[in-house]
Amino acid sequence: MPNPTAAMLVIGDEILSGRTRDSNMHHLAKELTAHGIRLLEARVVADDHAQIVSAVRALSSAHDHVFTSGGIGPTHDDITADAVAAAFGVKIGVREDAHAILRAHYQRTGLELNEARLRMARIPEGATLIDNPISAAPGFTLGNVHVMAGVPAIFEAMVAGVLPTLTGGDPLLSQMIDVDRGEGEIARDLSDLAARYPDLSFGSYPYQRNGVYGTQLVVRGTDGARINAAMVELARLAGRS
Amino acid sequence: MPNPTAAMLVIGDEILSGRTRDSNMHHLAKELTAHGIRLLEARVVADDHAQIVSAVRALSSAHDHVFTSGGIGPTHDDITADAVAAAFGVKIGVREDAHAILRAHYQRTGLELNEARLRMARIPEGATLIDNPISAAPGFTLGNVHVMAGVPAIFEAMVAGVLPTLTGGDPLLSQMIDVDRGEGEIARDLSDLAARYPDLSFGSYPYQRNGVYGTQLVVRGTDGARINAAMVELARLAGRS
Repeated sequence: MPNPTAAMLVIGDEILSGRTRDSNMHHLAKELTAHGIRLLEARVVADDHAQIVSAVRALSSAHDHVFTSGGIGPTHDDITADAVAAAFGVKIGVREDAHAILRAHYQRTGLELNEARLRMARIPEGATLIDNPISAAPGFTLGNVHVMAGVPAIFEAMVAGVLPTLTGGDPLLSQMIDVDRGEGEIARDLSDLAARYPDLSFGSYPYQRNGVYGTQLVVRGTDGARINAAMVELARLAGRS
Repeated sequence: MPNPTAAMLVIGDEILSGRTRDSNMHHLAKELTAHGIRLLEARVVADDHAQIVSAVRALSSAHDHVFTSGGIGPTHDDITADAVAAAFGVKIGVREDAHAILRAHYQRTGLELNEARLRMARIPEGATLIDNPISAAPGFTLGNVHVMAGVPAIFEAMVAGVLPTLTGGDPLLSQMIDVDRGEGEIARDLSDLAARYPDLSFGSYPYQRNGVYGTQLVVRGTDGARINAAMVELARLAGRS
């Protein structure tokens, strides 16, 4: 079975202005790889309705899954839920199950469930809720789009809740080896190897360590035996001076 | 004059597999903001010809500038230059000026300028070179697309070389204030304020510090006096309990 594919959509002016360094993409990338889902594309857009709608449509039609982060809080610039509803052409409003979750949370914490906070119970029709074990306000899945919070601790908790419900593929495996030579020295042999193992992907990443230039070679694929075979050849290539 | 707009395209399997955490997007975002260029969108794609061509076309037609990182080294998976040439429908080959730069560099370092390394002198027709003060192999600008290396130190040096050559807009200014209340408490007042200052953008970012929940409010715009006026109102809002 081929591995399912995914895209990520990071939503928020603060990432594009340089105020905030996104960490959710890297976290999701690692988790998806471990779960056998290939992350093929990621996008970052501003808190802009048209941009979000357009990106959700493009990504959800091109991939098995889309994961979004950001824009589901209580303030005026939290417009992700409405934009995702618009992208799918469905209605959105305060939904009783989400309302009940918020009511219980704010009763427990003694804070007021005011109009702004009630916005976080706006859920598109037909969506299923994603549990938020940290601050209650739920995410949701609509079609193949999983809508999650931008705050990293909450995003990570939601990913941990959603991933086990998705069908993964064969785990995406990788092995690596460091070679004390520049990329340019080994590029030709690496290219030959890649041509003989078209089912694997070969990456090379230059590094400088204690003044020595070298290259980290990474082999990725789903067939452990094939990766092992390629690694034997890479090790031979690395040993040659 | 309205601020020029920009998009970033990060190219590389290693970002999407979770092997590498991208840092170039955050660096570029800060630099562009300081230079008065609005970064409106970013994408990450794999080392895949069709994906790169399609992203370059979409982004270069939608924005004043596109900045790419990654995929211009000597190995088989370094396909950015060819993909950018294809996106613009121009030819690509080893160009004498780039060849001369590499020849001088490898003579100086005593390493061989082999076939793989010569790939780094492949420059699309009509492009201008971007200086690489670290490892010589140049980036290039073709049309409104600035093609740069993925290694952060080199990417940052190339950005430092390119930005002064671009017309910026009024600097994008921001001021911030921390409020010891949750986003949901101040969301309504913030929304009212945002409606009265449509020329500014208001962001709110929840934080937890020493067990206290609070919100950082950020005001962005190009008119310093207007930002000051909004900050006075925000400070009043923050002082109210």
